[in-house]
Amino acid sequence: MSEVRRDIVTDTWVIVDTDNDKLPKLPGVDFKPSRGCPFCAGNEAQTPPELYAIRNQDSADGPGWKVRVIPNIKPILQEDGELKKTGVGVYDMVSGVGANEVIIETPEHIINFFELSEEQIGFVLKVYQQRIIALQKDSRIRYVLIFKNHRPQAGASTIEHTHSDLIGLPAIPIRIKQKLNGAREYYGFKERCIFCDIIKQELEMADRLVFQSENFVVITPYASRFPFEMLIIPREHSYSYKLTDEFQFKDLAGVLKKVCKILNDVVDDPPYNLILNDCPNLLPRQDYWKTIKADFHWHIELTPRLYRTTGFELGTGFYINRYAPERAAAVLRKNL
Amino acid sequence: MSEVRRDIVTDTWVIVDTDNDKLPKLPGVDFKPSRGCPFCAGNEAQTPPELYAIRNQDSADGPGWKVRVIPNIKPILQEDGELKKTGVGVYDMVSGVGANEVIIETPEHIINFFELSEEQIGFVLKVYQQRIIALQKDSRIRYVLIFKNHRPQAGASTIEHTHSDLIGLPAIPIRIKQKLNGAREYYGFKERCIFCDIIKQELEMADRLVFQSENFVVITPYASRFPFEMLIIPREHSYSYKLTDEFQFKDLAGVLKKVCKILNDVVDDPPYNLILNDCPNLLPRQDYWKTIKADFHWHIELTPRLYRTTGFELGTGFYINRYAPERAAAVLRKNL
Repeated sequence: MSEVRRDIVTDTWVIVDTDNDKLPKLPGVDFKPSRGCPFCAGNEAQTPPELYAIRNQDSADGPGWKVRVIPNIKPILQEDGELKKTGVGVYDMVSGVGANEVIIETPEHIINFFELSEEQIGFVLKVYQQRIIALQKDSRIRYVLIFKNHRPQAGASTIEHTHSDLIGLPAIPIRIKQKLNGAREYYGFKERCIFCDIIKQELEMADRLVFQSENFVVITPYASRFPFEMLIIPREHSYSYKLTDEFQFKDLAGVLKKVCKILNDVVDDPPYNLILNDCPNLLPRQDYWKTIKADFHWHIELTPRLYRTTGFELGTGFYINRYAPERAAAVLRKNL
Repeated sequence: MSEVRRDIVTDTWVIVDTDNDKLPKLPGVDFKPSRGCPFCAGNEAQTPPELYAIRNQDSADGPGWKVRVIPNIKPILQEDGELKKTGVGVYDMVSGVGANEVIIETPEHIINFFELSEEQIGFVLKVYQQRIIALQKDSRIRYVLIFKNHRPQAGASTIEHTHSDLIGLPAIPIRIKQKLNGAREYYGFKERCIFCDIIKQELEMADRLVFQSENFVVITPYASRFPFEMLIIPREHSYSYKLTDEFQFKDLAGVLKKVCKILNDVVDDPPYNLILNDCPNLLPRQDYWKTIKADFHWHIELTPRLYRTTGFELGTGFYINRYAPERAAAVLRKNL
């Protein structure tokens, strides 16, 4: 069981496992040997039954798939149960309901995302969309987060086979809220999308532009928190990843393969996170989100984890970045 | 040189080093051998001249000190220069002025903070106060953050000799702002300090209470982000660490030694951060802070770093804590 607890002072939410009594240990930096990888084709019986898959043939939980979605074997949120909001004295709590899924990106034992073919990455991107659409039919789920942790230093689990994580949350996370509110305020003031303005300025200034494709722009953000942080954003205004079409998926697959490849070429196999920033589930509070189609613009964050966060970042939310984004963009462009 | 840049969407500030052109590398988890530790008594010449010290005799930069404050040898902010706020197209920038200091906590080569005597910790706590008072005379400095990084996994530098870091910032960090705003809103609504209400409730409920001293209460917070996270807070309302007196320092020294010791006993020498959350510098914007004496309550956060943050925490500001604070408090109490 778990509870989703809110820090009433800072509005930070924490999913607390109230059952586990195993003392935590310092995590290692190495993967366990991958004999009998449960994510490889042929080993489907080692995982829970699949929730969704792109497959050639109709044989759930057998081989013949291209991308396979399974429940997380250590779920932190429960699928079943009512979304209850409770006060605990001065505190706020929401019941720990939500979705925990793992998206296995290939039947082959490939470790690096950029080693997947563009076609394969395209399948993965389509599955992201399908899962978001499916889960947003559930009004208990307020936000669907899809992300990748590459290497243990970026929080990867002990399974190295390339995969993405999906968590469907019963509350909108604070960083997403900050983005939604920032974008809404800016729009209220200027009647322009803040992200569209950022794209326009970055294309004009060009010093933080890594490259652009037909539909996407890749930049190192002005206030990059990490060296070689990148923002991948659709050139045309679009409030939701759910609207992405076949042509854009094809283009985005090429863009993602390229950014991960050049990052790998510049800094030898760095730990990184890839985070899809989509709009929240609009179903539960449609009135509240009525301006979101104009003011929000979905995007992907790529954050290499080459510096460890210290008490400074943890205590403040301030970051120190000792490698300027203009310099990072120049180095990345040279490796295109 | 550095620039302090604001992410206009999320209001996250980043100090960007605009000079460094050395490519970042993945940090290791081991300390370098400590032969000729520059922080040990006798090696004062290996550090920049001291800014402040508690010493027995009048011989700056020689031995005979108890606690010694030096400038950081790799400062990220410059001491000199005007506080300039500049717009860069749609972006905001503040000049990189501020303070970067290191507080060497003992002349002896001691690695673990809890191995210092209570008297010695008392000296350290007094030096914290002296530095905050000195730096807050400079109205360019908006916030003075003092923190400890214990072990490399918590972001410690390559020097193991126990020390604290101080950064004087030209902008108030977002996590502190969230706390200030949360506390102000609560006070505006209830006319009570939110932290005083938390203390009252935790003393009544008792399941997250670790221990209490004459002047301080130690709890595992309701929405603990990390296993064994602890909050050390003065029992009586006090908006600033600057008001702490000799008796309270003596008491706090014993409390801090104890919490670090029991944490070490429960989880073998865990990496952790210790973060002093004081009020901001009130000098530059006295009108804006006119209610702060009633609504804010200083405190210390102790955050063991037993789980690595993944793309989930980074992308959302949401946390997953697989060891409930009630359970952590019970284990800590057993080790008192």
